[in-house]
Amino acid sequence: MKLVSFATSQIPEPHLGIVRDNEVLDVDLAGRALQLDVPDQMLDLIESYERYQPALQVILSRAGSRRFSEVQAFSEVGAAHALSEVRLAAPIPRPRKNIFCLAVNYSEHAKETGNLREHQGQEPEIPVFFTKAPTSVNGPYGEIEIDPQVSSEIDWEVELGVIIGKKGKNISESDALSYVFGYTVINDVTARDLQKQHKQFFKGKSLDGSAPMGPWIITADEISDPHNLELRLRVNGETKQEGNTGSMIFNINQALAVLSRGMTLEPGDILATGTPSGVGFSRTPPQFLAPGDLMEAEVEGIGVLRNPIVQVGS
Amino acid sequence: MKLVSFATSQIPEPHLGIVRDNEVLDVDLAGRALQLDVPDQMLDLIESYERYQPALQVILSRAGSRRFSEVQAFSEVGAAHALSEVRLAAPIPRPRKNIFCLAVNYSEHAKETGNLREHQGQEPEIPVFFTKAPTSVNGPYGEIEIDPQVSSEIDWEVELGVIIGKKGKNISESDALSYVFGYTVINDVTARDLQKQHKQFFKGKSLDGSAPMGPWIITADEISDPHNLELRLRVNGETKQEGNTGSMIFNINQALAVLSRGMTLEPGDILATGTPSGVGFSRTPPQFLAPGDLMEAEVEGIGVLRNPIVQVGS
Repeated sequence: MKLVSFATSQIPEPHLGIVRDNEVLDVDLAGRALQLDVPDQMLDLIESYERYQPALQVILSRAGSRRFSEVQAFSEVGAAHALSEVRLAAPIPRPRKNIFCLAVNYSEHAKETGNLREHQGQEPEIPVFFTKAPTSVNGPYGEIEIDPQVSSEIDWEVELGVIIGKKGKNISESDALSYVFGYTVINDVTARDLQKQHKQFFKGKSLDGSAPMGPWIITADEISDPHNLELRLRVNGETKQEGNTGSMIFNINQALAVLSRGMTLEPGDILATGTPSGVGFSRTPPQFLAPGDLMEAEVEGIGVLRNPIVQVGS
Repeated sequence: MKLVSFATSQIPEPHLGIVRDNEVLDVDLAGRALQLDVPDQMLDLIESYERYQPALQVILSRAGSRRFSEVQAFSEVGAAHALSEVRLAAPIPRPRKNIFCLAVNYSEHAKETGNLREHQGQEPEIPVFFTKAPTSVNGPYGEIEIDPQVSSEIDWEVELGVIIGKKGKNISESDALSYVFGYTVINDVTARDLQKQHKQFFKGKSLDGSAPMGPWIITADEISDPHNLELRLRVNGETKQEGNTGSMIFNINQALAVLSRGMTLEPGDILATGTPSGVGFSRTPPQFLAPGDLMEAEVEGIGVLRNPIVQVGS
């Protein structure tokens, strides 16, 4: 299933939708039409997926091979929208904790940043985690604001995002993927000057709007191998990053096993799994985003984030 | 005001209370008795303090100089409890994002950790921030579980905790204290082995239960100078840390100004302001917590956390 959080002029607060055939079905309205108990928010769905999944299946079965807008029960309550006519928020518009992120999780990226960092291009021996604040979350097509008073080195990092589906602690590598609800695209937008000055990555990783995410969550059952997905990042149409999730230094199983040691993971938690090579600051000369740029982050089989860069502040 | 989140056998979910004279007043029950609109949760109070403060004043005025239990309107609805008969949770039992923490914010602590870290004992030139997960939050008297499979180097760090009261971004140093709702005690319990191995501090700082907090929030109006408070940490009665918040390298104003640059602070956000010298891992030989230990973290004018250490796991 392809799940979104979307808003319309009628219902401006982001709420849960199912996407198919370039249409979005409002789950709450569709559920009411069929007298089904369904959630209105993505986090509620993730937290109680076993409870709600049968109702979502009933909704999809009702549509069958028809488009959502062709199902009278849906269209008469205004539950079916053209995808182009809604506003997509991040699939989890407001996570309940910071986003977990893996640092230096692709070999070529470790090499390209080696000259500029303490690690001299060596791969880490264990996964390195930092976090991004919930206030950094941005929609898949949201503007990214650059304030020159805050940072002049805003850089890109396309990543596969993993959404946790159930509570767990000390998860084994072999069990880890059973804790995954689904996958999304995350652009771990980074203020390189702040990242470097503050040493711990949090501050340079957590500017408002610096975590565009989406456009949707693809449930885990529809991604046959999360370790074989192409990743690409383009700025103004020019490809800057190109990689494959198969090149992760620590795969999702290993990362979740280490992350959950002594620390409980919860439904709705988000892990950004690291970025391949091609980031801006390690280029010669270094490249950074500028107002007017359009940045596109893509993960094969999931989707594309398109974020325009704008300037704010004095 | 001295505000707690507390539980009783009748109402086991942590909810809002006011502490005075070793008694806790259940704000929700007291408010109902006086037909006042009051919140039941600390975060709701902090988010809408201007709205609710008058009602809290009415409640306190009703008591006047009497103990809460001597006020018939409160005692007949069971709103007044002896402090010794309730269970205190962390004042904010579940923060809505990770706790912000300052690293190396006392000179003597910078020196004592210099031999063991990259910074060679130098003070940081700008504030260094990392975070602790909301799942690390622990009550003021909660057990701290040590799992030898996860870490064998659990260490202490007494800190002044700052609770943000209103939304703000790019806050100036001179305005910063007006964004503070109140103060609490935080023990930034740290797995030194994980902190070192993972390089970025997040993992070693975020084990479940590693952020005891409380016992209460003292509202900012009752702390005349947050930069002149004694901090102490004892293990089994022996003083390990002793310092004063006046020795911070970056004071609260400076820390909030830098933290909020380009990143919105929100009501209920928590900042742990760093720890003075005397931590275990920099001692000769290094000292760490062991099952059976009792750790006490104290900030003058606020209170004392008392956390027993217990062993779990195989």
